[in-house]
Amino acid sequence: MSKTSNAMWGGRFAAGPDAIMEAINASISFDRRLYAEDIEGSRAHAAMLAKAGIVSDKDAEAIREGLLTIKSEIEAGEFEYSTALEDIHMNVEARLKALIGEAAGRLHTGRSRNDQVALDFRLWTRGQCDAAIEALTKLIRALVARAEECADAVMPGFTHLQVAQPVTFGHHLMAYVEMFGRDLSRFADARTRMNESPLGAAALAGSSFPLDRDMTAKALGFDRPMANSMDAVADRDFALEYLGAASICAMHLSRLAEEMVIWSTAQFRFVAMGDAWSTGSSIMPQKRNPDAAELIRGKIGRILGAQVALFTVMKGLPMTYGKDMQEDKEQVFDAADNLLLSLAAMEGMVATMVPNRESMRASAALGFSTATDLADWLVRELGLPFREAHHVTGALVAKAEDKGCDLPDLTLEEMREAHEGITEGVFSVLGVENSVASRRVYGGTAPEQVRAQVKRWKDRLG
Amino acid sequence: MSKTSNAMWGGRFAAGPDAIMEAINASISFDRRLYAEDIEGSRAHAAMLAKAGIVSDKDAEAIREGLLTIKSEIEAGEFEYSTALEDIHMNVEARLKALIGEAAGRLHTGRSRNDQVALDFRLWTRGQCDAAIEALTKLIRALVARAEECADAVMPGFTHLQVAQPVTFGHHLMAYVEMFGRDLSRFADARTRMNESPLGAAALAGSSFPLDRDMTAKALGFDRPMANSMDAVADRDFALEYLGAASICAMHLSRLAEEMVIWSTAQFRFVAMGDAWSTGSSIMPQKRNPDAAELIRGKIGRILGAQVALFTVMKGLPMTYGKDMQEDKEQVFDAADNLLLSLAAMEGMVATMVPNRESMRASAALGFSTATDLADWLVRELGLPFREAHHVTGALVAKAEDKGCDLPDLTLEEMREAHEGITEGVFSVLGVENSVASRRVYGGTAPEQVRAQVKRWKDRLG
Amino acid sequence: MSKTSNAMWGGRFAAGPDAIMEAINASISFDRRLYAEDIEGSRAHAAMLAKAGIVSDKDAEAIREGLLTIKSEIEAGEFEYSTALEDIHMNVEARLKALIGEAAGRLHTGRSRNDQVALDFRLWTRGQCDAAIEALTKLIRALVARAEECADAVMPGFTHLQVAQPVTFGHHLMAYVEMFGRDLSRFADARTRMNESPLGAAALAGSSFPLDRDMTAKALGFDRPMANSMDAVADRDFALEYLGAASICAMHLSRLAEEMVIWSTAQFRFVAMGDAWSTGSSIMPQKRNPDAAELIRGKIGRILGAQVALFTVMKGLPMTYGKDMQEDKEQVFDAADNLLLSLAAMEGMVATMVPNRESMRASAALGFSTATDLADWLVRELGLPFREAHHVTGALVAKAEDKGCDLPDLTLEEMREAHEGITEGVFSVLGVENSVASRRVYGGTAPEQVRAQVKRWKDRLG
Amino acid sequence: MSKTSNAMWGGRFAAGPDAIMEAINASISFDRRLYAEDIEGSRAHAAMLAKAGIVSDKDAEAIREGLLTIKSEIEAGEFEYSTALEDIHMNVEARLKALIGEAAGRLHTGRSRNDQVALDFRLWTRGQCDAAIEALTKLIRALVARAEECADAVMPGFTHLQVAQPVTFGHHLMAYVEMFGRDLSRFADARTRMNESPLGAAALAGSSFPLDRDMTAKALGFDRPMANSMDAVADRDFALEYLGAASICAMHLSRLAEEMVIWSTAQFRFVAMGDAWSTGSSIMPQKRNPDAAELIRGKIGRILGAQVALFTVMKGLPMTYGKDMQEDKEQVFDAADNLLLSLAAMEGMVATMVPNRESMRASAALGFSTATDLADWLVRELGLPFREAHHVTGALVAKAEDKGCDLPDLTLEEMREAHEGITEGVFSVLGVENSVASRRVYGGTAPEQVRAQVKRWKDRLG
Repeated sequence: MSKTSNAMWGGRFAAGPDAIMEAINASISFDRRLYAEDIEGSRAHAAMLAKAGIVSDKDAEAIREGLLTIKSEIEAGEFEYSTALEDIHMNVEARLKALIGEAAGRLHTGRSRNDQVALDFRLWTRGQCDAAIEALTKLIRALVARAEECADAVMPGFTHLQVAQPVTFGHHLMAYVEMFGRDLSRFADARTRMNESPLGAAALAGSSFPLDRDMTAKALGFDRPMANSMDAVADRDFALEYLGAASICAMHLSRLAEEMVIWSTAQFRFVAMGDAWSTGSSIMPQKRNPDAAELIRGKIGRILGAQVALFTVMKGLPMTYGKDMQEDKEQVFDAADNLLLSLAAMEGMVATMVPNRESMRASAALGFSTATDLADWLVRELGLPFREAHHVTGALVAKAEDKGCDLPDLTLEEMREAHEGITEGVFSVLGVENSVASRRVYGGTAPEQVRAQVKRWKDRLG
Repeated sequence: MSKTSNAMWGGRFAAGPDAIMEAINASISFDRRLYAEDIEGSRAHAAMLAKAGIVSDKDAEAIREGLLTIKSEIEAGEFEYSTALEDIHMNVEARLKALIGEAAGRLHTGRSRNDQVALDFRLWTRGQCDAAIEALTKLIRALVARAEECADAVMPGFTHLQVAQPVTFGHHLMAYVEMFGRDLSRFADARTRMNESPLGAAALAGSSFPLDRDMTAKALGFDRPMANSMDAVADRDFALEYLGAASICAMHLSRLAEEMVIWSTAQFRFVAMGDAWSTGSSIMPQKRNPDAAELIRGKIGRILGAQVALFTVMKGLPMTYGKDMQEDKEQVFDAADNLLLSLAAMEGMVATMVPNRESMRASAALGFSTATDLADWLVRELGLPFREAHHVTGALVAKAEDKGCDLPDLTLEEMREAHEGITEGVFSVLGVENSVASRRVYGGTAPEQVRAQVKRWKDRLG
Repeated sequence: MSKTSNAMWGGRFAAGPDAIMEAINASISFDRRLYAEDIEGSRAHAAMLAKAGIVSDKDAEAIREGLLTIKSEIEAGEFEYSTALEDIHMNVEARLKALIGEAAGRLHTGRSRNDQVALDFRLWTRGQCDAAIEALTKLIRALVARAEECADAVMPGFTHLQVAQPVTFGHHLMAYVEMFGRDLSRFADARTRMNESPLGAAALAGSSFPLDRDMTAKALGFDRPMANSMDAVADRDFALEYLGAASICAMHLSRLAEEMVIWSTAQFRFVAMGDAWSTGSSIMPQKRNPDAAELIRGKIGRILGAQVALFTVMKGLPMTYGKDMQEDKEQVFDAADNLLLSLAAMEGMVATMVPNRESMRASAALGFSTATDLADWLVRELGLPFREAHHVTGALVAKAEDKGCDLPDLTLEEMREAHEGITEGVFSVLGVENSVASRRVYGGTAPEQVRAQVKRWKDRLG
Repeated sequence: MSKTSNAMWGGRFAAGPDAIMEAINASISFDRRLYAEDIEGSRAHAAMLAKAGIVSDKDAEAIREGLLTIKSEIEAGEFEYSTALEDIHMNVEARLKALIGEAAGRLHTGRSRNDQVALDFRLWTRGQCDAAIEALTKLIRALVARAEECADAVMPGFTHLQVAQPVTFGHHLMAYVEMFGRDLSRFADARTRMNESPLGAAALAGSSFPLDRDMTAKALGFDRPMANSMDAVADRDFALEYLGAASICAMHLSRLAEEMVIWSTAQFRFVAMGDAWSTGSSIMPQKRNPDAAELIRGKIGRILGAQVALFTVMKGLPMTYGKDMQEDKEQVFDAADNLLLSLAAMEGMVATMVPNRESMRASAALGFSTATDLADWLVRELGLPFREAHHVTGALVAKAEDKGCDLPDLTLEEMREAHEGITEGVFSVLGVENSVASRRVYGGTAPEQVRAQVKRWKDRLG
């Protein structure tokens, strides 16, 4: 609908109630995206009707062949959609009748548009879970590869966007691997939960025909038929769960994208984004705007918006099917398209960004970022209580600040003025490389730990 | 994007980074809707450049004529959009160059895509305020007309969907007139606030050319130029305010739509929706599903979702323009389309619904709905304190319930057992018509009050 | 904060920057709810520090005992919280120092407030998953019990809130059992995914102390330590996943609540809500407002709002901890409280509502609700194609409507005027009990199917 | 509710249905915030009842005095709220009866809790519009003062967070003045629209008492009584409009806060936030975390969440009052508290931040930020078409990049290799001060323009 100009709208409204009703009621402009699922579901239904003796083998065969023909026509761009026929189901059925005649009328036996659309949309959403899993796997691979390459590249670790402690760029990237890994498992869980067949629920009460619901469920790759016919046609929680997983994933993407925007500034200069993912300016050839990163940062908007939209639609709807539920599809379509697009673009950006090791390292040393290491050394080696160690460290940082130097540049004597127990050994923990190397606890930023995590993920991804 | 099949997506991604970047970056698939505003803005800019002596009159005239030609081409469906040219601005400019040659290159003097897109989108949104005001006016007219017709049609007034007190159907409809009237004024306020011209802000800092910003502002119907160039290119609060007004309006629509759905049930039978706004069933010819009402009830979902989407996009964006802001348009387009469609459909539904006066009146008398009137009579005529009057009334309702009759069916004697001061006069306030007629306070449900409000609105609408 | 009067606010602001900063910065007013988790985590950390030889056994024991004392003080209401100490962590630590002296300063070794708060909040949220699972189990039990009781109570099955086909009340309730069952499994999945320990991540980079992260993870019931220290302190996806599951559950609750509101109307009279869950009116003693149902219907608002709030907060935050993330807790607290309250209230309402079988059955027969059964009979027994059967049925419904009777009241002759193949057998499928009994397909509304599902759930719940 | 521990919940639920119902139904825990409005409204109602002869002057006086006493008790903290009395209205009325006896029972004549709560909440929200306007005015004053001070402090103007063109810090701050100025006018419009009195609508149908609605409206500062009694008790659009204005304002705040976070980094060093608005680290005394800025950045989350919550609650509610609407208040309370807190904190931050002029100026010269000025010069002075001027500029930037110098460092000869028409005059537009000074168009960044806008705002604010 978004392409309609205002003028056209005015015209439509002037055309009277029928045109307005058609505009608000017909779904063919968007539900045509379900054509493959619709045909797949109908073919399974027809085969089952024949097996159960409800229609003849001959009719079933004609139906199944006719549906394949229609699929080919659609994919070849030769199918003429009719808005008067409202939706994809009626469009396909009408064409089927034109192709094979009266037998087409037997396809809808023991079925209703209510379980049919529930089936189609569920199949489509299930496919989107698979697509998200695939795209996330590729993005994770790209991150793991870059993390391995940069397992020892020192950069500042930030809290509050203030330099806090040195970390490695590899470790930073592996944090996102964990997040996207959980996203992946969320889509997998959602897929498992939604993988039950609504087919056979008919309008809402189930059918009096001896349908073999297990047979169609199996044919369509479902784990089992749904256990309550009213639930089958009336709920859309599977779509909301998909949108929830997509929103969390988009949130993670927005954070990495924000970092890319900040890292690309002239002030940070931590990475340069690949040419393919930036846009220039005809007048400032050196300028490289991180457009793709910004767009990805914003995509959480429409995905979260889609989730809010569908929740609002579903709120307070009495059983079973209500026409409001027709609003479900466009939201999921749009969210899914934008999620896949964002994941693909992010994969490309991760793979091609050029880290500036010198610049990152220089930033890592800012702000006495190894003060914590000094304090930990005082606790570990001299047995100071944590809070006292903090006090001593504060004094030394103040001294260094006065002198205009960094912590490792203080002399041992100066150190001992703050606490006389300090020995030469303290210098082994100052300096950003030392700091990073010391954090060897499981999950820590020490390069060996980063590499261990890289290996774990490579093993997991196979 | 929503019409793209999955297969196409797979193909696009396989095509590599350039295709993905184009898919995420290009806006021409949706911002082409701004063509008229883009051309209108460019024509005003060109005229000003000539007046200010920045381009020659001849060049300006060529530009302005060329732009008109392009507008005709677009409206005739003869314009070929190019995704490689990314957006509507570049598409128009490229075509202009093809039409008039090098002079086209002078149009962009003292302008940037940043103030250009801010202008186009602002003009479009301003137009949507006007369109909403017009559509609301028509809906209000329809409601007022039906309210006048039903100013004395008694129906139950509900709280908690329980019968509480009798009201008139006209009064009920006039409640929505007030709501939609406030909606209308919200769009008017939003329009006034957004009616300032960003043109002349250039990229972000203003221009060094002696632009006459007042002249372009006036030519485009703005009240004045915006006072800060960075604000002009970086804010989208006008779009959020539009979406806020649209969301509130959609909320009001959802409530009326819900009532229509409930009123149309076999259990309520208060109204029958017009044929044009219902769908039947091939098998149950008497069945009339209130599809349009349900769809309108659900539209708040996508409009509120659009608002959430744009808020989320804008959250935390540093000055000035960021590419994330490209996400603004589709949200507003979709919300505006659906709002106008809902308003037009609701207008049609209001105009054609058939109230069932008998059924409404019968429901109005359920549940001792005039008990409050009895209590008020006890206070007014006998001077009982409110809380004591409630006690007496409760006793009489219990008595009527025991007898299986309604309050006016009790005898005076039975009445006086509850309170001996009760006189014959009490019967004048029992009965739903009496009840309704008695609520003559300003804004009350008495038919004379409803008619007074109908008159006020007719006068206001002219 | 919501209880502060405006006057107090004015006073606070007048008090200057320090008071404003304290008001916006301190979290103790709400994070005190984490006291048990904070103490549990600190006790596990202390035991590990001793085992790893980082603090002495004696100090660790003093710390662990002191923490137990503090827990008792808090639970006895004797603990004095200090806003100057900002949060629960500092409040507990300060009290510990007062109780056991300097040794308290060793507790924070190898730990930071960043991993501490991530731990506390994760433990709390995990506990809420358990609580939701328990509450859902109780609600499901209540629904199953009522479904068994009403497995053969005929009511109308609705689409578009129009009578469509007869179903049983038991079947209708079992639809919600399926929905709440999926909700339960969503909380279980979320719990599994979040059940990893952030402890040991320290500020963000991991620790240089030889912490045994497996030991603390095990002591706190986690499956394993988190694999990346930056991810551990910076992500809140577990809270968003909890809120997503809660929102879907609240959506399901809103639908059942809406039905209860509608069922309780004088026009439907399908159920009477229990006295404990309704409110009356002092003046209309027979009036029973379904307040609890309405409140539950509305709760999705704040739960979805909480989800939107946290998504918006997290959008675009760079690594690692930012103070914005302090906004996470109040949202989850409020959503969790309201979810548990709604589930408990709904359980009570389901257990005590009184179905009106006569009224439901009478409604079920409205609107020729067995027309589909007639059509199915024509297909099944006479071999008519589905679409032709619909045509014949339509003719018979029209005839019945003309006669002012229901379908089973037509004579065989009248039937045969529409299609001469119709036999006496057709009457076996007309009538709402026949219709319901015939829908014996798996998941259908036939009482035997409903009872089979009741049994399946009883077995599952144990 | 958010302060209740889980243990308490468990206890409450174990206590049975009454305790759960009380927990979900009673509103006194939060609606006590409406005490002043409730008493103010009741006093006005009592005065009117006397004037209209509905209650005696003596009773009215007793009521009015009693209410003042209650107000004093509440403000002195001596009032004992009872949850059994559910809400603020019943709590006040019960106390009034205890204070003045039976006359208290006459206060509720011609009134209902429905119009009473609509009145109280509307008065409270109106007060919040005033409070927001006051807080915004103070923030704007602070911004204008800093803008005046920094009218000529050069900094980089960013697009995409890339240096684009030089601007002044004063100009940048004035952009926010414009945004907050529009926010202010949004609250003013909302206030005007909501400033109508619902009092006299009674339960929903208006009253049969001869109430003088104009008198109470005037006494309470309203412009007029609302024109439809059902609308008066059933709509909450005024609260949604408040939340919409608050959300937009919070969005603006989030952007300025994000900039403060970025400006405070070691990499940008554009400003140092005041000590009162930062937190340090015991170990890194030089570290200054911009906590207040981060918290403000996140506040849009809960404010937008509140808006979504209330929209979701109101969606699809049939007329008139439903108990779901009780969910309205907590959302508005929380949003209003956080908005005022954020505005006050931001005012303090703006007033005390310390700009680093050297650092900003140095950044402004990065990235050939005056390339646009060069191109504009070529158009203006040499008459080149815009697109050709861009081409020449690109060549010169490339040359400077090769030489490792900035544009003004190129010699005239080097310039003329790119275009022979270039003259000495070109140097007058290169250099960031020249660039800034040249953008003298209305609303541009030239210091004189900034000062003109400062003056305009000072005049406007008085």
